[in-house]
Amino acid sequence: MNHPIKKFVAVALAAGALAVAASAIAQQAPKPEKLITWRQSAFQVVGWSFGRVKANVEGQYNKDEVVKAANVIAAVSNSSLSTLFAPGTETGKGTHETAAKPEVFKDTEKFAEAFGNFKRESNELAKVAATGDAAAVKEQFGKVGRTCKGCHDDFKAKE
Amino acid sequence: MNHPIKKFVAVALAAGALAVAASAIAQQAPKPEKLITWRQSAFQVVGWSFGRVKANVEGQYNKDEVVKAANVIAAVSNSSLSTLFAPGTETGKGTHETAAKPEVFKDTEKFAEAFGNFKRESNELAKVAATGDAAAVKEQFGKVGRTCKGCHDDFKAKE
Repeated sequence: MNHPIKKFVAVALAAGALAVAASAIAQQAPKPEKLITWRQSAFQVVGWSFGRVKANVEGQYNKDEVVKAANVIAAVSNSSLSTLFAPGTETGKGTHETAAKPEVFKDTEKFAEAFGNFKRESNELAKVAATGDAAAVKEQFGKVGRTCKGCHDDFKAKE
Repeated sequence: MNHPIKKFVAVALAAGALAVAASAIAQQAPKPEKLITWRQSAFQVVGWSFGRVKANVEGQYNKDEVVKAANVIAAVSNSSLSTLFAPGTETGKGTHETAAKPEVFKDTEKFAEAFGNFKRESNELAKVAATGDAAAVKEQFGKVGRTCKGCHDDFKAKE
């Protein structure tokens, strides 16, 4: 391997392998803008579904509608949303400028706890929705709403 | 009721009642831009989750990750997405200009059928994901992908 040409070939091959590996990593890791778009979209979908539950508990109650909406909130809350707040996404634009406060990335333990609360109450809402008990849904809906507000107060800037 | 003042009062009260009713309807019906934002967000969330299933069937397979992502796709597919394509949302901007083709609003029967296919295959994907059978998930994932493509070909403009 001491022959200059052999050495050149070995270095060239190693560089090629590195380039392929870097490209594979680049494919796997979505850009920060994409992560921000996904998290903003996920919260839009939660907001849409939350509004549907609200309309039902405040107006004409339709069990199927509530089940559908509650299942979306629960499924999204279960779906590792915190991975969308990866390092590198502290600032930037998805569908619009991120409203995540610096605390999201600094106080990750408290943020995880706030997410855990949302997840727990959302899954409970989906369970209660399946029973069709409108009064119980209304009460549990309030609990979910408080986890939203709690997290927004600490981790989301006013928009 | 034939006295002019009584008549005036009756008309004024009726007009007031109408205004209140109109206001209540306006509160209930989200603006077209909001409906477009929600549908665009829902498809972003589906795309995010679809990509997660893809990464698992093409790389290291993690059952829990696939279950979470598949449950999101199924829940969103079950969630009356077609109501977000209400009349009045043929054009306009949500997070960006809508890419819905005019056919969405003209050929509603075919659009509903395309959505039904997506819903059916997505719910099947969630079922298969729960078994943890990676090969079966890969096959079912392909079926879901074809329902996406089929609908996009007919109903979504190139962006």
